[in-house]
Parts: sequence; structure tokens; C-alpha cells
Amino acid sequence: MFPEADAVAPAVTAVFTTVLTEGPLSRVALARRLGLSSAAVTKAARPLIETGYLEELAATERTGPGAGRPASPLAIRADREFFVGVKITGDELIGVVCDLRAEVRTSAHRRLSAPDVDYVLTELGEFVDELLDRPGSLDIPGGYRARTRRLGLAVSGDVDRSTGLVRYSPFLRWHDLTLRERAEKLTGLTVTVENDVKALTTAEHWFGEGIGAESFALVTVGAGIGCGLVVGGRLVSGSHGVAGEIGHIGIDVNGPACHCGSRGCVEAIADADAIVRQARAATGRPELTFEDAVALARDGDAPVGAVFARAGDAIGSGIAAVANLVGPARIVVSGEGLAAYDLFEPHIRAGFQRQAFGTAADCPLSIRPLPFEEWARGAATVSIQALVAS
Amino acid sequence: MFPEADAVAPAVTAVFTTVLTEGPLSRVALARRLGLSSAAVTKAARPLIETGYLEELAATERTGPGAGRPASPLAIRADREFFVGVKITGDELIGVVCDLRAEVRTSAHRRLSAPDVDYVLTELGEFVDELLDRPGSLDIPGGYRARTRRLGLAVSGDVDRSTGLVRYSPFLRWHDLTLRERAEKLTGLTVTVENDVKALTTAEHWFGEGIGAESFALVTVGAGIGCGLVVGGRLVSGSHGVAGEIGHIGIDVNGPACHCGSRGCVEAIADADAIVRQARAATGRPELTFEDAVALARDGDAPVGAVFARAGDAIGSGIAAVANLVGPARIVVSGEGLAAYDLFEPHIRAGFQRQAFGTAADCPLSIRPLPFEEWARGAATVSIQALVAS
Ligand SMILES: [Zn+2]
Ligand SMILES: [Zn+2]
Repeated sequence: MFPEADAVAPAVTAVFTTVLTEGPLSRVALARRLGLSSAAVTKAARPLIETGYLEELAATERTGPGAGRPASPLAIRADREFFVGVKITGDELIGVVCDLRAEVRTSAHRRLSAPDVDYVLTELGEFVDELLDRPGSLDIPGGYRARTRRLGLAVSGDVDRSTGLVRYSPFLRWHDLTLRERAEKLTGLTVTVENDVKALTTAEHWFGEGIGAESFALVTVGAGIGCGLVVGGRLVSGSHGVAGEIGHIGIDVNGPACHCGSRGCVEAIADADAIVRQARAATGRPELTFEDAVALARDGDAPVGAVFARAGDAIGSGIAAVANLVGPARIVVSGEGLAAYDLFEPHIRAGFQRQAFGTAADCPLSIRPLPFEEWARGAATVSIQALVAS
Repeated sequence: MFPEADAVAPAVTAVFTTVLTEGPLSRVALARRLGLSSAAVTKAARPLIETGYLEELAATERTGPGAGRPASPLAIRADREFFVGVKITGDELIGVVCDLRAEVRTSAHRRLSAPDVDYVLTELGEFVDELLDRPGSLDIPGGYRARTRRLGLAVSGDVDRSTGLVRYSPFLRWHDLTLRERAEKLTGLTVTVENDVKALTTAEHWFGEGIGAESFALVTVGAGIGCGLVVGGRLVSGSHGVAGEIGHIGIDVNGPACHCGSRGCVEAIADADAIVRQARAATGRPELTFEDAVALARDGDAPVGAVFARAGDAIGSGIAAVANLVGPARIVVSGEGLAAYDLFEPHIRAGFQRQAFGTAADCPLSIRPLPFEEWARGAATVSIQALVAS
């Protein structure tokens, strides 16, 4: 077991989190990094070593002036515990088993025929079993199941992580669903539920490009345009339940109507639906799909190319608003939509450069496609976080 | 003197800050609020009482179930120390003397004929003397000067508070001015220099509508549109030196050119210059001033009224971007421009309501004029903060 609650002083959590996200680190380096004494670090590390979450690596020789006795860095024992992560969408489940360092060890898909709650939950139970029954690597007796106690679920929409309630998920058409409670009954695992964009942001913040950043933003492009924001090292959740809604920044007062009731929102110009709608209008072909639009633009169709250019520019302008207001250390842009990376990328950068004010334009943008299992890894990451906070 | 550095444990700072911004509070209430033991609060309060910064109020009777012995709340001794605050603009100095609770005790103006550095600093020295020589209330022997050690300066533009350097102030046309160093030589006071919008935000956060708020935003409307943001209890400063630049959020891709190089920024539609420019175009009168435009709009001139309506709507749309992204607990909208409050207010609210997404629209907006000495009070507040952090 993870050290008992009364042993988990703030120093234990701090040492564990720092080794997890930045390790391996020597006790001396940890003490310096956390502003603790070496004795306090040693004391905090002890229960973590005893329960098998940390291990001491072989001492490395230190050379050069000031080298004392060799340091034995503390490292995470990544396969001490596994975590299942599942992203639930309206038409599929995407699942992974991750280790303690959020490395994906195995992954799977399952098609869903409808977003009906009872049906989806039954499928979810079977899907989690399928993942846990995989043998794992040869050196893990009992496979993943023997070392898995936690499940993270990621759902789009308005999710209350503290209670595990899905208040409203538009794509799934779920309202006030006590997802955590039902999934715990179904699987016997300890469940954490989070909004999908926030889960993905957490994964990037703890295990990706946001490691160690005081502030950081992740922008997702696809069915909807989302944004997760980290400020002062913490995920911004918004005093009134809304944060990171980059999709509804208004960038064109005369632009197309948005489902939110306004006009010219980033989402109304740049999400997958908006692109299909505009490409159909540009070609006069009402049956055109997103994939068709991508193919046409790649073949040099100028009007459809212009639709992607306008969309990329709108996204860049919205990202500039994030940089101008909050000034993150870096911004990652990803999502299913970026499968058409080549069509978006130069226009995202152009819109950003035009609209970023002064040195806000120095903020590095990482624009890249999103591997399909990444959303599920985000879900697993929030269950790792729940372990650390437990 | 304020307690010596080695006595200023984090608990001392925490107790002082909490009594300053939320007091008077009993030791029991402070202990609960700060997660400290009563003994730790008593120990932290002692040096603050001994040096005269805190005092014990007369015990108040407590009634009702659970009432123990009467509590003696701790309170700030507001006139233990005074602080000068000066806002420096291109054409005037605005100054105040505040007490420890940031109450304005006296205020003054001084016209400037040019933004020349040496001239402005000479004027500043005389101006601070003039303020300090005022007698103060009858019960303060020696007037303000006897109890004043600190001066806060607020300047628009790019200011580095940690070094006291004014990197660039467009209205003053100052570049890389070591303002803190020069002002300290000139006045003999300990000087803190801050960007004017950040200083005003600090004043609202510590002593105004933002008290106790985890997140909070202040938007200023006038010569430029600015924004100060508090997230997680701390002022956001931006990893690349830019934050709160609401003025350069692009809300109309086809809008008027902005001095930043883009088009349709909030500032290009809604700051004082933009309003004058649009009002001149609407009336064909090239000599029109801002005051003329206000008068015409109030007299029912429809085209000039539409200029204010469009500007208010643009500001509301920009504020909605802040609410959608960060979700502050509340937003204060103020500034010289809001002397024309009646012309802006309904349109700011309409733009905000249209563009705020979902429950982000629940964020309360306080839209109000800004008393002239408020900017200078902001400058004094950062010097109070510098005392607390010292
Ligand atoms: Zn919208
Ligand atoms: Zn601009």
C-alpha cells in the first residue's frame, strides 16, 4: 500500500511528486529543490522506499571540484502500481494501462453504438476487464490486474472531479450522472472522473512538455476547441465553473453564428463541424465530410484551402488571447483536428504572431498531432494524481 | 521599526497580512483561517504588537452556545506608519499619503509641462516634500513625515518591480530608466516602482472589491485598455513579461488598424483615441475632443452614440474572454474613460453577456468611475506590500 494517511506529511507528497515528475534526483538535490533539510528528505523518503514506490539507484560517481561522497539518486519504481485510463466519447471507448510514470503499457479501442448510459457503463466494465486481463510484460506475475487499484475516466463537458459527477456532457447527452459511484460499483476500482481537456492538460503538465512550468496551456482542436490552463503550478478551474473556454472567444463580430448564441467565436470558425459547413458552402457539395475537405485542400482546392487557413488563423488569434492575458511559459496545440496538421499549422502561427502583443509572441508554440491513446493516458494521469493526493 | 528580518517568520507575515486585509480578527479566528495553532498565532502576533503595528481591541462579549471567554480581536494600528503613493503620467503627478490600511489621508496634483526625465524627477522630489510637510491630523506629532519611510511609484508601460527599472513607458517616452534608484536618492525614502494597472489591481485585491478572492480581475478604460489579473491569490505577471493585455485581444478581424500592428483589437475600437477618431469620422468634425464626443452622445447624437456603443460592446467582449479563460470570482471595470460611465455601461454588459460562455456569465461586473487619486493609492499600496514582504 501507499504509505498510510498519517504518514503522508506534506513533505512525503512533495518528495514523491518531485521525483515522479522530475526525477531521478539525489536527496541533496531534492532538499535544495524543495527548501527542506536533508534529514527531512531522508525521513520523507523512508516510507516511500519501504512501500516500494521509490528506490535508490546505484550510486553515481561525482567528479569535479566540490564532489563529495557519491550520491544515490531516488527514482520512481514505475511498475509498482498500474492505472487504467479510459476516455469515453459518444461513439467509442479508448483505454490504456499506464505505469506510475504514465508510460502507456497497453491500449485498446471499443466501438459504442449509442451514448445510452446503462449500455455504455456495461461496455465500460467489460472493457476495463479486457485491459486488466492482458498479461503485461513477462516479469509481472498476475498481469496488470494484480497491481491495479485505480481507474481514471475522462469525459468532455462539465465534470466535477471532487464528487465524480458528470453535470452535463453534450456529445454523450448525459446530465447529472454519478459516474464515479457507478463505475466504482462496476469495477471495484477507486475511480477519478475529470473533464477530458483538463485530464490531458494534467498529463502534459506532469509528464509532458509542461513539466516544471509555473504556467502552461494546452489547446485542443477537433470537435470543439478546448484549453486547459495551469497558472502558479495549478490547473485553473474558474470561480464560476468555467475556465479555458478559448472556443468561445469572439474574434469576428460579423462572423458565423455559434451554438453558444454569439457570433464569430473561434469554435464557430475552426472546429470540425465549422470546417465541414464552410467547405460544403465553398464547394456547393452538401455531402462533403471532414476527410473530403482535408483531401481537397491537400489537392490544392483554393476555396477549401481558404477554409482551413481562416480556421487556423482563428485558432492562432484565440491562442494569442491566452498569451496576452496569462502569459504561459509555453503552449501545446494538439487534438484530433491536427491530423490535418499541415493545413492548420502555418495559419495558427501567423494568427498568433499577428495578435500576440509585444514579448507575448516569444511564447513557444508546440503544434502537433495527438496520438489516439493520449486522451486515455490523460485519464490515467488523474488517477495517478489521486493516488499522490490520497 | 517593523519586526527584524529574522523575527519575520512566514507566520508573522501571514498573521499581519490577514489582519491587514480582513481584520480585526481574534487569535482563534486567525488560527482557523491560517491553519495554525493558537500558540503559533500568539507567538507571531507578539513582535507585531511590540512594534506597534497590531493592537488588541477591547474584548467583545460573545453570546450563544459554545461561547467561551471573551475574545480580544487583533487589529491594525492604521496610523503606525504612512506611505506616499504617486502616479506619474505624461502631464501630471497625482499623489496621496495613505495610512497602513490604504486609507487616503491627503492628496494633491501637480501639472507637468513635459515628460523630460530630469524635470519630472525634480518635480517629483518637490511634490513628495509638499505631501509630507502637510500637518496630518492633529494627533500625529511631526505630521506625516515623522512616520513615513516608503514611497510607491506607478507608471504605465513595462515596469520591472523587482529592480525598479522602467523598461519602456510609451506615454512618458521613457526607456530603461532606473527610477527606483533615482527616486531613492532624491527623496531618502525606500521606493517601490510598479506598473500602474498592476498597482491598482493590488489595491483592489488587498483593500477593495477583491479582498479574499482567489481570483479577481481589474479592467481599466481610458488612454489604453488594461487589465490586472489575480489567480490563485497572486498577481499574474506572465512568463514572457506580458500579462493582462486585454487591449490587444482581437475581436474584429476586419476592424480598424491598431498601433500594435494588428486589426480590430479592443483598444483600437474602445480607448480614448479610438473614440475620438471614430467620432470625428462620424461627424466630419476633425477638431472634436473626447469631451465633445461625450457631450454629443449625451445630447442624443446617434452616430456618436453608436461609437460609444461599439466601444462598450468591444470592452464587454474582451472582458468575456477573461471570464471564459480564467473565470475570476469578480471583475471590476474602471478608469478615466468611465467618467462617461453612462455611455459605456449598458453596452459593456451587453457585450459581456453575449460573449460569456455558460456560467461564466455569472461573474459579477462592477462598472464604476475611478476617483482621480485611486491610481496614486494603488502606488501607495505596493509600498505597503513591500513593507509586509520586507
Ligand atoms: Zn460561441
Ligand atoms: Zn492591438
